[in-house]
Amino acid sequence: MKIWTKDEIIARFNMERAVRMIEEGFVAYSRKTVQVPPVQNFQFDAANGDCCVKSAYVEGAAAFAVKVSTGFYDNPKQGLPSNNGLIVLFSATTGEPVALLQDEGWLTCVRTALAGQLAARLLAPREVHGIGIIGSGEQARLQLEYLQPVTGCRDVFVWGPSAKNRGHYVEKMSALGFNVRAMDSAEEVAANANLIVTTTPSREPLLRSEWIRNGTHITAVGADSASKQELDPAIICRARVIVVDSIDQCSKYGEVSHALSAGLIHAEQLLELGALLDAGQRARDDTNLAQITVADLTGVAVQDVQIAASVGA
Amino acid sequence: MKIWTKDEIIARFNMERAVRMIEEGFVAYSRKTVQVPPVQNFQFDAANGDCCVKSAYVEGAAAFAVKVSTGFYDNPKQGLPSNNGLIVLFSATTGEPVALLQDEGWLTCVRTALAGQLAARLLAPREVHGIGIIGSGEQARLQLEYLQPVTGCRDVFVWGPSAKNRGHYVEKMSALGFNVRAMDSAEEVAANANLIVTTTPSREPLLRSEWIRNGTHITAVGADSASKQELDPAIICRARVIVVDSIDQCSKYGEVSHALSAGLIHAEQLLELGALLDAGQRARDDTNLAQITVADLTGVAVQDVQIAASVGA
Repeated sequence: MKIWTKDEIIARFNMERAVRMIEEGFVAYSRKTVQVPPVQNFQFDAANGDCCVKSAYVEGAAAFAVKVSTGFYDNPKQGLPSNNGLIVLFSATTGEPVALLQDEGWLTCVRTALAGQLAARLLAPREVHGIGIIGSGEQARLQLEYLQPVTGCRDVFVWGPSAKNRGHYVEKMSALGFNVRAMDSAEEVAANANLIVTTTPSREPLLRSEWIRNGTHITAVGADSASKQELDPAIICRARVIVVDSIDQCSKYGEVSHALSAGLIHAEQLLELGALLDAGQRARDDTNLAQITVADLTGVAVQDVQIAASVGA
Repeated sequence: MKIWTKDEIIARFNMERAVRMIEEGFVAYSRKTVQVPPVQNFQFDAANGDCCVKSAYVEGAAAFAVKVSTGFYDNPKQGLPSNNGLIVLFSATTGEPVALLQDEGWLTCVRTALAGQLAARLLAPREVHGIGIIGSGEQARLQLEYLQPVTGCRDVFVWGPSAKNRGHYVEKMSALGFNVRAMDSAEEVAANANLIVTTTPSREPLLRSEWIRNGTHITAVGADSASKQELDPAIICRARVIVVDSIDQCSKYGEVSHALSAGLIHAEQLLELGALLDAGQRARDDTNLAQITVADLTGVAVQDVQIAASVGA
């Protein structure tokens, strides 16, 4: 078994290869040519921590993957990152362990951001005049970084709850060539952007429908478990196109679940990302400049197996 | 993260410590002071393989475990063992990976055999005049080896489908000081033994009720998934004491499930191994020499986390 450290993984990582494989994973997921057993979850109340085990196999692939990711939210008090984890790849022909990726959660962050890139490819307006970012942590940085291949826009408006983190964000992303302005509210972000990505672990809506301008696309990646929510359900209701990474999962949690349970939308309106990628067409009507579109990405294990295979197989 | 190879694991292994921790694990499981999410399963039809992911946390312990075990049954044709796998221990206070145990499935074999030892401690007759072993593979060897601390009997009668493997079994176990005789049928084993362990992946009953002598205890460990079966359900019906490692799991598969679905027994008759160990009493009525008892062991993830912690924490 090969063992890769986080630094080695970052050195081996190739964005184009990873995107291509994640796209293939989403297509296989929507074609149901995958095995994705139910997620295993742990709660560690005394340590303010949780863990999930996500496993997947894309039929016909050389390897399947088991990913363990942990979030222990008091870790920063003792100088440790909140997130950790690893992925193990196993041969689908002999069952032998093939590779251990000690990525410390990095690949999960990246595959989440790459799903945002795929969603933007299908759904972002042809002319993006401002990119809005809600949140200012690592995921907010990666989402913006990976938007570069799908839009020429470099004007960015960011807001997150921490003023200090907003400052760091401006500094780091400006170094990548973006014109970044920290805003005082999510409302100001919405007023300046027609491509918005929300990246926070919020448990209440941060964006209200009346703030969203016609012609905007929003990708929401924060609501990866029950009770998390970043968008006003009225935004989902208003959207002409609602794309999800997993109809099954987003019906249970994610932004869409709130709109479904409030009766604002019907499950039949949901389009699965993999099915759209399979069709090879944009999901946005580029002749309708007022159209609002939403992508709700909760994270599925095919992303994990595919990004791991892109690095470690 | 510490990384232990199979040889290092075997060198570090201490049977007494492992038994004590597995016993504690069963007790915690029956007290429901554990987190044991549902098992994840894969099937690899083209390669005649399967995989299961079992995870567990015993509340209050320093670590939790994720175990991946694979069975690829055509592997021997290319000189590879059928079973493989590994266990990863994670800190329950920070989520960091603590130890990787590359045991290649060895710890799963051992924890299964040690559960057999615990069952025999509670259920084997006071006077064992013959040990019967059904099956002649690695699990059949370990079960017998680990019976040594709980009975003085060294007279062993073995039958398994392969005559060649029976020969190997006699040779290997004789070297450990047992008087082993290979028999021509399971019926002959039953005629000579009052403590029987069945260890095969059979999908049809190998032991019939009319062969079982009064006063016999049977531990069955082979039926670890749906459709596997080693015992005639009439044996379960006839048993005065039916012990299971998990009431929930054995009601779904395992020997007991067949007797339950045939209406031969009621779920209320099932006793959980951990609850009996917790009470600290033998489960057999030693004044009733005719009593037949059965232990149905399907394997639960608390065994995995405990044996891993006994070696690698």
